[in-house]
Amino acid sequence: MKQVGTHLVVDAWEAPQDLLNDPEGIRRALIDAISAGEATLIDLCVHQFSPHGVTATATLAESHIAIHTWPEHGYFAADLFFCGSGQPKLAMKILQTALKAKQVRMREIDRGFEETTRVEESMVESLYHMVR
Amino acid sequence: MKQVGTHLVVDAWEAPQDLLNDPEGIRRALIDAISAGEATLIDLCVHQFSPHGVTATATLAESHIAIHTWPEHGYFAADLFFCGSGQPKLAMKILQTALKAKQVRMREIDRGFEETTRVEESMVESLYHMVR
Repeated sequence: MKQVGTHLVVDAWEAPQDLLNDPEGIRRALIDAISAGEATLIDLCVHQFSPHGVTATATLAESHIAIHTWPEHGYFAADLFFCGSGQPKLAMKILQTALKAKQVRMREIDRGFEETTRVEESMVESLYHMVR
Repeated sequence: MKQVGTHLVVDAWEAPQDLLNDPEGIRRALIDAISAGEATLIDLCVHQFSPHGVTATATLAESHIAIHTWPEHGYFAADLFFCGSGQPKLAMKILQTALKAKQVRMREIDRGFEETTRVEESMVESLYHMVR
């Protein structure tokens, strides 16, 4: 496979509700995480839901970081997709420390493509159906 | 596991370079995909890299969609994370059609957390080290 990047898929729980419901704290944690991860921020959206929950997406030169919190469950989901340079695990360590999650499950996924020869349309269609 | 959402991790290739390097086309495809997926857009960032490549992140009420393109490889990576309602596979179908990828690998990941009892700090630390 031609690998273009590494994607950390993180589920974290047993985190304090107040930290998961604080958009400004999450904004600061993300900026610190991006710095620690040696990544370059292009755009940052932080959104507070009512009655609770925060979503933040950081568009990076390296790809993206996204975080979604469920304070009522003490849970957050984080994705850190870095292509090229950068240290996604260091970035994740900052997020975990800032949000004080006691349990973390991290899955590391290689992103990229198979270097195949051209295939017929019929094969493409069947590939698509395989994954539906 | 307490599931909070479904995450489609998609790698797609054999797509035309010009479509992968067209930020306005990708913006339209994303808006169409969000509509087809019955999702609600909060914020959309579309960024063109030099000399080529486009990154777009859509912050959704349901979580997020991100897409990163490598026109020089005919490749794009897409993530569609939907919690609660919505149809992420329909959204992905729109993206694939718009960008004319002939090969698609889709991995479907359940996102959520284990409903465990509280654990000791030492155990948390060892869990973290397991995944480094």
